[in-house]
Amino acid sequence: MRMSELLGERYKEKPADCTIESHALMVRGGYIKQVNTGVYTLLPPARRITQKIERIIREEMDAIDGQEVLFPVVLPADLWKESGRFTSVGKELVRLTDRWGADMVLGMTHEEAAVHLARDAAKSYAKYPFMIYQIQTKFRDEPRARGGLIRVREFTMKDAYSFHTTQADLEAYYQRCYVAYERIFQRAGCKNVIAVLSDSGMMGGRVSHEFMLLTAIGEDTLVICDNCDFKANIEACASVVDNSALGTTEALTLVPTPEMATIEEVAGYLHKPHNTTCKAVVYQRNSDDSYVIAFVRGDLEVHETKLRNTIGAEIHPAVITPESGIVAGFIGPKGLDTKKITVLFDRSLEGIGALVCGANQQDYHYTGFNIERDYGKVSYVDVARAIPGGICPVCGKSTLTISNGIEVGNIFQLGDKYTKSMNMQYLDENGQLQYPIMGCYGIGVGRLAASVCEESHDDYGPIWPISLAPWEAQICVLRADQEEPKRVGEELYAALQKAGVDTIIDDRPVSAGVVFSEADLIGAPIRLTVSPRNLADGMIELTTRDKRIKKQVPVAETLSTVLALKAQLFAEIMEK
Amino acid sequence: MRMSELLGERYKEKPADCTIESHALMVRGGYIKQVNTGVYTLLPPARRITQKIERIIREEMDAIDGQEVLFPVVLPADLWKESGRFTSVGKELVRLTDRWGADMVLGMTHEEAAVHLARDAAKSYAKYPFMIYQIQTKFRDEPRARGGLIRVREFTMKDAYSFHTTQADLEAYYQRCYVAYERIFQRAGCKNVIAVLSDSGMMGGRVSHEFMLLTAIGEDTLVICDNCDFKANIEACASVVDNSALGTTEALTLVPTPEMATIEEVAGYLHKPHNTTCKAVVYQRNSDDSYVIAFVRGDLEVHETKLRNTIGAEIHPAVITPESGIVAGFIGPKGLDTKKITVLFDRSLEGIGALVCGANQQDYHYTGFNIERDYGKVSYVDVARAIPGGICPVCGKSTLTISNGIEVGNIFQLGDKYTKSMNMQYLDENGQLQYPIMGCYGIGVGRLAASVCEESHDDYGPIWPISLAPWEAQICVLRADQEEPKRVGEELYAALQKAGVDTIIDDRPVSAGVVFSEADLIGAPIRLTVSPRNLADGMIELTTRDKRIKKQVPVAETLSTVLALKAQLFAEIMEK
Repeated sequence: MRMSELLGERYKEKPADCTIESHALMVRGGYIKQVNTGVYTLLPPARRITQKIERIIREEMDAIDGQEVLFPVVLPADLWKESGRFTSVGKELVRLTDRWGADMVLGMTHEEAAVHLARDAAKSYAKYPFMIYQIQTKFRDEPRARGGLIRVREFTMKDAYSFHTTQADLEAYYQRCYVAYERIFQRAGCKNVIAVLSDSGMMGGRVSHEFMLLTAIGEDTLVICDNCDFKANIEACASVVDNSALGTTEALTLVPTPEMATIEEVAGYLHKPHNTTCKAVVYQRNSDDSYVIAFVRGDLEVHETKLRNTIGAEIHPAVITPESGIVAGFIGPKGLDTKKITVLFDRSLEGIGALVCGANQQDYHYTGFNIERDYGKVSYVDVARAIPGGICPVCGKSTLTISNGIEVGNIFQLGDKYTKSMNMQYLDENGQLQYPIMGCYGIGVGRLAASVCEESHDDYGPIWPISLAPWEAQICVLRADQEEPKRVGEELYAALQKAGVDTIIDDRPVSAGVVFSEADLIGAPIRLTVSPRNLADGMIELTTRDKRIKKQVPVAETLSTVLALKAQLFAEIMEK
Repeated sequence: MRMSELLGERYKEKPADCTIESHALMVRGGYIKQVNTGVYTLLPPARRITQKIERIIREEMDAIDGQEVLFPVVLPADLWKESGRFTSVGKELVRLTDRWGADMVLGMTHEEAAVHLARDAAKSYAKYPFMIYQIQTKFRDEPRARGGLIRVREFTMKDAYSFHTTQADLEAYYQRCYVAYERIFQRAGCKNVIAVLSDSGMMGGRVSHEFMLLTAIGEDTLVICDNCDFKANIEACASVVDNSALGTTEALTLVPTPEMATIEEVAGYLHKPHNTTCKAVVYQRNSDDSYVIAFVRGDLEVHETKLRNTIGAEIHPAVITPESGIVAGFIGPKGLDTKKITVLFDRSLEGIGALVCGANQQDYHYTGFNIERDYGKVSYVDVARAIPGGICPVCGKSTLTISNGIEVGNIFQLGDKYTKSMNMQYLDENGQLQYPIMGCYGIGVGRLAASVCEESHDDYGPIWPISLAPWEAQICVLRADQEEPKRVGEELYAALQKAGVDTIIDDRPVSAGVVFSEADLIGAPIRLTVSPRNLADGMIELTTRDKRIKKQVPVAETLSTVLALKAQLFAEIMEK
């Protein structure tokens, strides 16, 4: 490719609407153009990157016996009605009708389509296990599209579905896929990807992991233990506390707490530590606006997703009306109408002898409140948010740290949720009908490209790993209007291409400043500068985009040097 | 791949709903599964074929300086409103709204998206010409989906868009693309593809060609001259007649023709040849139901698409009401109310001295009707359907033949339709703003796969060309339960794969009948049968799917023989 022919403009200025570096650089570098909210056209450099990602993914999926298929983008609603998701999934699922008025949806994930295919094709146990995958466009009507390709509405995704006859077989395959994912991210040049336990969300199933690129701009919050291997999305992280020093009981006492409606105010006024207070957090169910009150230790917070999963219903922060009987700011367990209100106790409250809690009357709290003595026996739940320095649920040390991450892949053990609801069965060895169990495995191609850019860039542009770079080498011809640099550049261009090096040449009669700044935006790892000054010494300047290498190479040795460097850069990616 | 692991069932029985051979074979062979009307999932064999097609297309598009991009599937309606097609295109264009109620469409073609991208990226003449292409899913809500992948609603398409500053440059590029298309179809193993002049339809523009696979099941009708190079879609074929022997005039006479409402009846009754009768064909405009009457020589038919293009409006066959003033069966030019009715004369009527035509009163016709003398001077139009044995519009010989074809690709010279309506401009050498002109170029990937199957199959399955076959070679192990055939088969499988031959092995303990009938459905061009009987002589049987070759090969020579045969089969495809 020639820069003179490459479609797209490159800009020096950071676009005003880009808050994330990778987004700004991919706009400035002519990689993407927005077409609609969260919908982009990929220009040639980005398309080249996504093709390289797709090739890596294909190779790794084929290596774990994946069979590539292609499901439709537009699916009949009937399949989603079978699984129940036509109604259970919100507005992210785009619903539409065809010319005959038939309901359809835009595929945002393809479990239903996979079962539709597999239920006809795998009726005997002898066909199992198998995995099918596709690389296809998906549309998810995401309310919070942001950050260029980081969070979009339309995206290319690799989604894979495996089918098994036993849980042990699913787990073994899940592990193979886990390792394949590690290889994919490594080959894509991601240095800081970790796998964390995750919440299965709308997918259903029990065990799932997300592969997270650690980065400050990540929207996901991750809990990582510094002492052991534990890593989890905070949504899926058990909250563990040690209340063994808080067991002392006191008499239950009603105390006036005028106008003190927050934990800070009450604890300060009563000279009690926050961790002996009982905080009420109030939600309402989306379905009928009924109230849900979660009590949690006063120094902790409720994690809404954990609460949602615990009660198995969609919820929103409550609007407390006078008719509700709830006294905002003074809510406590004692005296709540549990016929109308769902009451939950987080396990952070378990074992505390004497709590401060609301008295359900304006301007009064209790001190010395003991849940078992003053309320009764309760089943504690886990709805609190894990905290930095908190106790690791695996090793028990207070060594938790909190980080941010971008989810670049996920794997789920789905179980029989879809095969049962969609009536997929096979005959086992004994002639009995059984439901197979499934795993599913996703990677967003465009997000991975943007994540790599986010992880690896400087102020001037992306620093692409050689495995993803739109071009492996860029030839910068300075004074392309002169015969000698132009000729040497062209000869080198021809030689590199012939030798299988993906090369772009900038042969435009523009200033060195423009040549270099645009080369920075293209981000090819290997740069060859052909200039009259170097040529006077018979040399070409070889630099790497990451600035590790900058040296003069004799013209005659350039090709062999580049080939060796290319091999070295590929090898480095595979070294941990 | 192993047949024992390949997802999908293969069937002996022809499915009842398949009227087209390729459709039946692709269902029977486990290539496709219907998900909705005109919407299919591709199983692994079909996905492998489409990937090979995509690779061929990419290579040929890159070879004519194409730059690959990726446009969205879901487009904002605004872009289609700019071009005017949001309202001008019918129900084929799926319209939907997002969570915020914004209008969107499913991309059925991407001229608007291409201009949206290019108008920011090519503001100077120095950027021209350029061509961008994508391989992407499209949805077209086609009312007549049929024939498996031949005519579907969702499909993968390669669509390309070129931009130029002069008509001459567009024409030169159009010619390059024409040649690239010929190469693509040749490489895909299509033997009977021809390029025909076509009607530009909803795309707009002037010159266009369709690449047609000649086949009896084709829905398109093609007119081919046996004497010269002329080839056209009948929609785009001028109808030429020779009326030089029909110039004799007669007196205009009103004659009773009781209850004779057809050309056959009237011509027979009056003893006049059909080609001196004037037939009226009546339509109504879709927009306001106003009438359009086309007069055509009685032995010819009106082609609705040609008429539609001539008047520039959508039409449908008329319902003739009493209030219309039209006397069905007795319609003639003389006395029609041309204020209410659009009247057109096909040029097949030009030069006929004495016509039989309706008299616009029940049970009466005229004889001796002369258009110029009895009606006035008219501008003849070309709306008649070309006929077999008709006159070629290029060489003038009566050598036209009619064939059927499947459109496997098309190329259009669009002109400035989209750049003008969407205000895409560039600065020319003189600093003046100009509208670039465009070409566009499409190939349906799945349809091409099905077309090749339609062209090349027998009763037992597809006979894939080696360039598209899901696997180049299939190893059929007979008595896979015995140690020797199993071992030899596996060694051969490993050796072939290592040597870069796409191979599938059938190592299932099933009967030879099942092995062979399923191999026929897979359609690999090279088959290697490993059986105890042949092995006793140290031989493997090598056959080709097209039955041209059937021979015994010593086990030790099998690999080299297959490699030579593979090379030969690839070479044969490129020989005209």
